[in-house]
This record gives sequence, C-alpha cells and structure tokens, in this order.
Amino acid sequence: MKLWYSIPSPFARKVRAAAMELGLSSRIDAVEIAVAPTKINPEFGRENPLMKVPALATDEGTVLYDSRVICEYLDALAGGGKLFPASGNARWDALRRQALGDGILDAGILRRYELVLRPEAMRWPDWLQGQQAKIGQALDAAERDAASWGEGFDIGHITLGCALHWLDFRFGDFPWRDSRARLAAWLERIAARPSMATTMPHA
Amino acid sequence: MKLWYSIPSPFARKVRAAAMELGLSSRIDAVEIAVAPTKINPEFGRENPLMKVPALATDEGTVLYDSRVICEYLDALAGGGKLFPASGNARWDALRRQALGDGILDAGILRRYELVLRPEAMRWPDWLQGQQAKIGQALDAAERDAASWGEGFDIGHITLGCALHWLDFRFGDFPWRDSRARLAAWLERIAARPSMATTMPHA
Repeated sequence: MKLWYSIPSPFARKVRAAAMELGLSSRIDAVEIAVAPTKINPEFGRENPLMKVPALATDEGTVLYDSRVICEYLDALAGGGKLFPASGNARWDALRRQALGDGILDAGILRRYELVLRPEAMRWPDWLQGQQAKIGQALDAAERDAASWGEGFDIGHITLGCALHWLDFRFGDFPWRDSRARLAAWLERIAARPSMATTMPHA
Repeated sequence: MKLWYSIPSPFARKVRAAAMELGLSSRIDAVEIAVAPTKINPEFGRENPLMKVPALATDEGTVLYDSRVICEYLDALAGGGKLFPASGNARWDALRRQALGDGILDAGILRRYELVLRPEAMRWPDWLQGQQAKIGQALDAAERDAASWGEGFDIGHITLGCALHWLDFRFGDFPWRDSRARLAAWLERIAARPSMATTMPHA
C-alpha cells in the first residue's frame, strides 16, 4: 500500500499510528507530500481530488480517503474490531470520540490557516474566536469523557491524542492543561506508546 | 430520538434523508436550530461541544455527532448493512464516496463563509480559488465514479446528492453540469426519491 502523508499533519498521523497499533506499518510505503489549501496540485489531485493528506492506495489500486475511511480500512485488514469496535455502544463511543478529536483539529487548522497562511490584513477576529470556542468546549467534553477511558485505546483515543499533541505543536502557548488535569495525565501516559512516540509532529 | 438540524444544512440533510430511507423518521423529533461558526452558543455547546448540526440524542440519552456517525448509527438501528455496506469493497466504495461528498461540502461551505459571512475587505481570492479547485476535481471524480452506480443508493450517494443540490442552492450560477452529464442525469433521477424530494434545501 502507498500512503501520502506529511509529518505535521495530525490526520495523517492518525493513519500512521493506527497502522503501527495494528501491526501493518511494514506493508505501507509512506510518501511525504506538502499540501496547503491555496496550493493547487493537479498531479496529487488525480489520486485524491480533495488534495489532502492522508490518502491511501490499496494493493488493489483503489485510492481511499479521508483519515476515518483509511483507519477503518486498516482495522478491517488486521481482522476488524481492534481500533473500531464492531458494534454497539463501544462503537458509537469510539466514533463520537473520533468526531470530537477531528472537530478539534478542523477548528484548530482553520485557526492556523487564519493566523499563518492568510495575509495579515485579512484576518478576522470573530472567526478565530468562534473556532477557539469550539476547541475549548470540545476539550472540556474530552476531560469529562476521560473519566471512563481506563486502558482503552480505540480510534477515538488515537484521534484525541493526535489532536492534543497537535495543539501543543502549533499552539504551544495555549494552556489547555490548566483546567483539564485528567486529559493531561492521560496524554502523558499514551504518549509513551510506540505508535504515538514515533509519530510525534515536528517542523 | 432528538435531532438538531437546520433546513439549509447539507450535513443535517444527510441524516434526515438517511432516516427516511431507513424508515426511522417517525422515531425522530427534529428541532431546528441556527448555527454559524462565529456564533458562540454555550447552551447547544452542552449537547454538541463543536456547536454544529446535525447532532442526535439517542433514546439512551447519548448525544452523537457528526453526520457520518449519526447516519451509521441509524443504519445499525434499522438492522445494519442498508446504507452502509457491512464489509468489503462495497463498504470502502461507499465510505470513500461519502468522504468525497463531505469534502465537496467542506470546501463549498468555506467558500460560502468567505463570500457571505466574512467582512468584504477580509476576503482572500487565493483561498476561494483553492477551495474551488477541490470542488471541481471532486466533481470530476464523481462523474467518473457515476459510470458504475446503477440503481445503488448508499450513504455515499446520499452525500453526493446532498452536495450537488447544495451547490445548486448556494452557488446557482456554477455550471457544474456542463462537463458532467452523467452526474447531472443521475441527480435528476435520485431527486425524485421521497427522501431527497422532501428534504430539499431552501432559504
């Protein structure tokens, strides 16, 4: 399989961490590519028309996207029911947790585009504030949710781990740990897993 | 169950159309709510911390989001394997198709926020152009994909139907049909389904 990814991308990191957890890393040929919403790349667009990472070409030649689809595909390849509980409340909890983490990332990435990519005169404070409110509330929800996590590590946990590390990576002065001690302790613990430790984002 | 939705939201429409296809509409109490990325609503934030529609409170009192999670939950409630093929290539095709439609909508909604919500002096042409390139390439991919659809109607088809109708609703002067005759004919056909006809977006 061929995976298009970038080192800073938290969505690509979800896939790389999932592949390691599932014992599939050696079957994946990972290719680094730089993408940006203002950079039109028709060549990569022939693989993933949305021009985002991650994208995965399967051994059958189909290109899958986005991170949710790829992670679930890898889980099925590894036998199924590992990172994606097969059914019932465990499944909906994991998928909602993944949606929460993806939502933190969507909002955080929009903030980053606004603050770094967009010309300074065109930055809109109301937009930044609205996205930050989503992040803050989502982190509060994760803090409450974390009370029940125990040693569990499903796709939702991977996603939240990637989201929290990405916030530290891109918004290092955001003191999210201050009112979320449980989440902070949990992140420290799971950061030691090989799947998380070897995929940490860096510039 | 309680569904938070808005009439123009294409993501909420996915859920409403899926519920009708699955015969579950009568079990859902739908509540209209207006959301916007710059409008902070802590009350709704206690239900969905990301403050987006759709959100679904199950009969057990759990609140699920986002549209992908809710649609799959409803499919399982209806017995499973109806809009979400249970396994194999049919599943990955449907999920990738859903990701393609969601990606068209993500890009289209960012364009709309830029053109309608954001103060005029802060609008960035490169951003609009980059998002439009994603939409164009994704529509081309859907046009190619449509050759194999036949009478199938899975969550990916629902999503693409919602995406195309939403483009017509919000960007009525975008002539996407010009180079995509197969997709245009398909949309006309599926628009007659009760699930699509009764959920058409309007202002």
